[in-house]
Amino acid sequence: MSAEPAGIRELLEDLAAKLTPELTEGALSTDPDVVSSHARDEAPFAAVGTALALVRARTVQDVQATLRWASRHRVPVVPQGARSGISGGANAVDGCLLLSVERMDRILQVNAAEQTVTVEPGIINQDLKDALAPHGLSYPPDPGSVAISSIGGNLATNAGGLCCVKYGVTRDYVREIAVVLADGTLTRLGTKTAKGVAGLDLCRLFVGSEGTLGVIVEATLRLVPLLPPPLTAVATFPNARAAASTVAEFMGAGARPSLMESMDRISLDLLNRFGDFGLDEQAGALLLMQSDGDGVAAEAAREVAEFAAVAERNQALDVAFSDDPEDSDALVAARRMAHPAFERYSHDHGGGQLLDDVCLPRTRIPEFYDRLDVVRERTGLMIAVVAHAGDGNMHPAVFFDAADQESVRLAHEAFDEIMAIGLELGGTITGEHGVGSLKSGWLARELDEGSRHLHRVIKDAVDPLGILNPTKQFAAL
Amino acid sequence: MSAEPAGIRELLEDLAAKLTPELTEGALSTDPDVVSSHARDEAPFAAVGTALALVRARTVQDVQATLRWASRHRVPVVPQGARSGISGGANAVDGCLLLSVERMDRILQVNAAEQTVTVEPGIINQDLKDALAPHGLSYPPDPGSVAISSIGGNLATNAGGLCCVKYGVTRDYVREIAVVLADGTLTRLGTKTAKGVAGLDLCRLFVGSEGTLGVIVEATLRLVPLLPPPLTAVATFPNARAAASTVAEFMGAGARPSLMESMDRISLDLLNRFGDFGLDEQAGALLLMQSDGDGVAAEAAREVAEFAAVAERNQALDVAFSDDPEDSDALVAARRMAHPAFERYSHDHGGGQLLDDVCLPRTRIPEFYDRLDVVRERTGLMIAVVAHAGDGNMHPAVFFDAADQESVRLAHEAFDEIMAIGLELGGTITGEHGVGSLKSGWLARELDEGSRHLHRVIKDAVDPLGILNPTKQFAAL
Repeated sequence: MSAEPAGIRELLEDLAAKLTPELTEGALSTDPDVVSSHARDEAPFAAVGTALALVRARTVQDVQATLRWASRHRVPVVPQGARSGISGGANAVDGCLLLSVERMDRILQVNAAEQTVTVEPGIINQDLKDALAPHGLSYPPDPGSVAISSIGGNLATNAGGLCCVKYGVTRDYVREIAVVLADGTLTRLGTKTAKGVAGLDLCRLFVGSEGTLGVIVEATLRLVPLLPPPLTAVATFPNARAAASTVAEFMGAGARPSLMESMDRISLDLLNRFGDFGLDEQAGALLLMQSDGDGVAAEAAREVAEFAAVAERNQALDVAFSDDPEDSDALVAARRMAHPAFERYSHDHGGGQLLDDVCLPRTRIPEFYDRLDVVRERTGLMIAVVAHAGDGNMHPAVFFDAADQESVRLAHEAFDEIMAIGLELGGTITGEHGVGSLKSGWLARELDEGSRHLHRVIKDAVDPLGILNPTKQFAAL
Repeated sequence: MSAEPAGIRELLEDLAAKLTPELTEGALSTDPDVVSSHARDEAPFAAVGTALALVRARTVQDVQATLRWASRHRVPVVPQGARSGISGGANAVDGCLLLSVERMDRILQVNAAEQTVTVEPGIINQDLKDALAPHGLSYPPDPGSVAISSIGGNLATNAGGLCCVKYGVTRDYVREIAVVLADGTLTRLGTKTAKGVAGLDLCRLFVGSEGTLGVIVEATLRLVPLLPPPLTAVATFPNARAAASTVAEFMGAGARPSLMESMDRISLDLLNRFGDFGLDEQAGALLLMQSDGDGVAAEAAREVAEFAAVAERNQALDVAFSDDPEDSDALVAARRMAHPAFERYSHDHGGGQLLDDVCLPRTRIPEFYDRLDVVRERTGLMIAVVAHAGDGNMHPAVFFDAADQESVRLAHEAFDEIMAIGLELGGTITGEHGVGSLKSGWLARELDEGSRHLHRVIKDAVDPLGILNPTKQFAAL
C-alpha cells in the first residue's frame, strides 16, 4: 500500500491547506531534517523509508484529523511513541505520515479507590511509575527500556520486562483503551471494570498490534499496591546449561520469583568491560533472582533459600544473598546495562549487533544453549546471551563486523538460525520485542495457514485501505 | 443467516449420505427427541429454535467434517459444551446443526515442568481440578458452575468465578488453543510459552467469542501450584450499602482476598429456606471473605484482621472467623447454593427468575443498591442480590410470576433497568455470563459505533458465511 499516484508536491500542498488548519498549532512538520530525524526507532538494520511529513499530535482530535486526511489520500501512517523499539515497528515507510503521540503524555486520572490510572500514550513508563508511587500504587510492567519507552509503545508491542515472570506483561494490566481507527473514528474498547465479557476482547486484540490496526490515544491501566522490596540472590555456574537447568527445576516446582534473569560468560565479560560491576568473570553463567514474598519477608527468605538449594544441586559455584535495597538495585541496574554494554562493544568492534528475542518452554533452555554453541562454531561469531530466564525469554546478541559483507551475511544467518531453533524447541520468534519490520518474514513461518489467513482478513477488515503501518508485522503473511 | 432454501428433507438425506461417513460412528443424531433434548442451555426465557441434527464430536476430524459440510450448505452451526450457560449462547437456532464437543473430554498432557495442561474442550472444570491435584497443580478459574461446566464453555464465555478477585478469569490462564474455523480449517492460536508477541493475539480474541468465530477443540492452560488453604471471615451488616462500602474501602486499599462474596437479606432468606445453612437472617447483608496469604498463614491472618477492621468501621453487626477448612468449605458451598436456592424459590412461586450479571466499578456498588431499591419499588418485584463483590460483579435475580403477563413484563423491565443502571454507573452489561441470545440488544447499547463496526467487520471476515452461532452476541450490532 503506497501512496496514491498524486505527486509529493501536491500532497504537501494539500497537507498545508487542509490538514494544518485542523491540527494544534505547530503539530505538522514538513522540514526534511525534522522529518528524517524521526524516521526510525532503535532497530539496527531494519528498513527505513522517506516520510512525507511528521505530525506531533497533542490531542485526540489531532490524531483523528491526521487519519482522516491520510485515508482520503491513501497515504500510509506510521504511529510513533518514544521510538525506543528495536524491531523497526516505528520506522518510516516511503511517502508516509509519521504520527507521533510523544507529546500526548498526561496522566488524566489516578483512581486510587479503583486502583487504576488513565493516561495518554506518550507518557514514559518510568515517569508513570514515579507519579504513582506517592499514591502507594505500582504499574508493574518494566521493559528493559522502562526509562525511555512510552506506555503507548508498550501497549503497541505488549511489552514484557524483568518483572513479567511474576507480574505478567503489559496486556495483563490493560482495562480499556481509546483508539483512533484508520478512518479517524474514535472508539473505546474494553471496560473500566475488573471483569467484562460484553463482546469480543478487542481491547487486547489492539494491544500488541504494533500500530497496524489503530492508534491508541488513551489507556486505563490496572494498578497494584507498591511492590514490596525484594530479597536478591546471585548464583554463578560453570556454564550456561547448569544455570538453565536451575531455572527449569526451580520454576517447574511452582516458584514465584519476582525476577529471574540470566547472563552468560560473554555477557558478564562485556558488562565488566563497560562498567565497574564486579561480576565474576570466571563464571560461565550468572543467575540474578529476586523474591518479594508478596510482602512477607520470611516468605521471600524461604523462596531465596529454595533457589539456593536448587542452584547448588545444579553445580552452582557460588550463591550470594542480599537484603540491602541498594545492593539489589545495583545488581538489577547491572543487568539493565547489558544492552548499553553490548552497544559499546559493538560500536568499538565493527559496529554490528543483532539482538534476538526468542521465547522457549523453560525446560528447553538447556538444549537452546547447546544449539547456540553449534551456531557459534559454524559462523565463528560472538554471541552473548542475556535472558528473562524465568519466562524462557532469550536475548542472544550476535556481534559482527558491519563493514565486512561476509560477517554481515553470517550474522543474519545466525539471527535466523536462532529463530529456527526457537521454533523447533516449541517456542516463538518473539517474546516481547515484536515483529516490526525485522521479523515479518519469520512471522509467516511461525503461524500456520489458518492463523495467517485470520491475520490477513482481520487486518483487511479493520484497515481496509491498508494505510496503518504497512510493511510491518503482517507484510509477509 | 438461515439455511439455504434446500428443504429439510434434502439436507437430512445429504447429512446421512455425505457427513455420516466422515464422522466417528454414532456421532450424528437426527432423532428429533435426542436433538430437541440438546436444544438449549440453562438460560430461562432465551429463544430456542429447532435444530436439524446433533453431532456429538469425538475427534477434531469430526468437528472439521461437520463445519465443512455446514459451510457447503450454509447451514448454521451452534457449538455446545456442557450447556450449563445461562445466556442462551448454546441454544439451537432454526435449521442448525448442534455441534457438541462434550465427549471430547480427555486430558492430553499434564506438563508439570512447564506448569501447563493440554485438554480437550469437553472436560468438566472440576474434573480437571481433581485430576491436577495429585500433581500439586491448580487451574484456578472457578465459575459458580465449576461442577457442571466444561473448559470449552468456560473458554467460549471467558468464565469468571469466585476466585477471580485474586486469581483472574479464564482468559488469564490460556496459552494456546486449537480452533476449527467455519470452513473446517484447523489452526493453532497463541503460544505454549510464558510470553509471546508474534502477531495479533488471536488466541485471546477467540476466548470469550461465544462460538461465533470458531470451535475450540484443544487448549493449553497455564497452571499454578495448589492454592493454599484460606482463612475465612464472615461479616454481617445492617444493610447492603454498608457491606458494599466495606468492599470498596477494603479493595481500594489494595487488598488481595482470594474470595470476596456478598449476599443481601433476600438471598440469605432464600438460602435458609433452601437448606440448613444457619445464616443470620436478621442481617441486612453478609460478606464472605477469604485470604490465602499466598500460603503464608500470618499474612492471611493479617489480611483477615484488616478486613474485620474495615467492616467494623462500616457498621458491621458481627465478624466471625474460621481457619477450619471444613467450616470454610461449608460457607463457600452455601454461597454456591444461592442459585439452586433461587431456582427452588422461583419454582415454588410462579416459576419466573431472571438472573442479571452487571459488573461495576467497585466504588459504585453502594449507589447500585440504592438504584436497585427504586427498581424494586417501581415494579413491586422481589430482587435478590448475590455478588462477586470484590470484582464489582453483581448478580441480581428478579423473581416474577411466569403465568402473569404483567409480572413477566415488569420482570423484563427490571432486568433491563438493571443493565441500564450498570452502564450509567460506568459498568458493563455482563461481567462473566456472556451476551448469548439474551443480551445481544444490550451489547449494541454498551458498545460505541466504532466498536460495533469493528465487531461486525471482524465477524464477517472470520465467518464470511455467518454460519457460526448466528443470532448470538453480534446479532444486534
